[in-house]
Amino acid sequence: MSGEGPLRVAVLASGNGSNLQALIDGPHERGTIELVGVASDKPGATALERAGRAGVATSVFPRDDYADRTARDLAIAAWLEGLGVELVVLAGYMQLLSGEFIRSFSNRIVNVHPALLPSFAGLDAVGQAVAHGVRVTGVTVHFVDEGVDTGPILLQEAVELTYTRPMEAVMDEIHAVEHRLLPHAVELIAAGRVSIDPENPRLVRIEGA
Amino acid sequence: MSGEGPLRVAVLASGNGSNLQALIDGPHERGTIELVGVASDKPGATALERAGRAGVATSVFPRDDYADRTARDLAIAAWLEGLGVELVVLAGYMQLLSGEFIRSFSNRIVNVHPALLPSFAGLDAVGQAVAHGVRVTGVTVHFVDEGVDTGPILLQEAVELTYTRPMEAVMDEIHAVEHRLLPHAVELIAAGRVSIDPENPRLVRIEGA
Repeated sequence: MSGEGPLRVAVLASGNGSNLQALIDGPHERGTIELVGVASDKPGATALERAGRAGVATSVFPRDDYADRTARDLAIAAWLEGLGVELVVLAGYMQLLSGEFIRSFSNRIVNVHPALLPSFAGLDAVGQAVAHGVRVTGVTVHFVDEGVDTGPILLQEAVELTYTRPMEAVMDEIHAVEHRLLPHAVELIAAGRVSIDPENPRLVRIEGA
Repeated sequence: MSGEGPLRVAVLASGNGSNLQALIDGPHERGTIELVGVASDKPGATALERAGRAGVATSVFPRDDYADRTARDLAIAAWLEGLGVELVVLAGYMQLLSGEFIRSFSNRIVNVHPALLPSFAGLDAVGQAVAHGVRVTGVTVHFVDEGVDTGPILLQEAVELTYTRPMEAVMDEIHAVEHRLLPHAVELIAAGRVSIDPENPRLVRIEGA
């Protein structure tokens, strides 16, 4: 997947950007990837400050500046292509992406989701898991397809839920797992160790795993 | 839940009965429960031999001997009530239970399922998980309600799936987890430590957990 030099990675984020920070402090600092751009739909997103502090180019694509999602996503795609982006990481990006965008970066978009997919897709996955009364939830890093959190699964890690555990403690552990799992997944891709099984597009091969 | 003496437990099984064996060798041997009966829909089920060797009463309720499932389940329920059964364990029981049966043993039936519910309910859960390409699956012990594998969750344990791992190795590990988790769940119930949250019937309280 990677050409000359480290993999060129961009991040789309809407909020705090703690997963972006994990990518900055890990793979970007280590030089295993090069973060070349961070885009947000929210002008005030903390993720943009984090990118700025790390000297990474930023751009804002507010929903209201565009006729529709397709037009906005075309602008984002053009910006990313201008930066020579090889991999797009969704890190708390709260907008749905258009089918055109997803197809134009086919198998080059990854997302981190705070549940063991296919359980608890969509919003408030941790709240869904707690309400369902599961004992084990976790984190999934997956490639993004046109469904909601339905794409081929790259990495997952389990997190135990005990009935009595305060929600904040659960959230903290899930975030800690995200901050470890997402950089690991991105580094596996950067190392060229990740491929989709040609015989079964649901299966993600990880060389040496 | 338990009265005088150890909890009186019955098992419904259709096949090999390795989970029954785990209950015989563990809680029954330890005297934390008393296995008082094993019923099967299959006259030749190995589970019946295992019960016989352990000196546990057995009975067979072949589908064809009854007008319908409700009639068969009424006969099973009558047999269980005659034995003073306090808890019914489904251990590879391949027949759906009638709503009447489930209601008559409300929150007194547990099932072990080879996946992390709500993912991969129903038949061939391990095959479903492998086909979906998940990295983490597991085992769930849950109370049985009128849905298919939808009841309140008592215990879960994760099992890692690596893409390259042979199916047999995965099945062996999942069975090993079942043989540990199901006896543990039954002993928690026998110890009176398990209750459904009165405010939220999805949540199973485990005292001291």
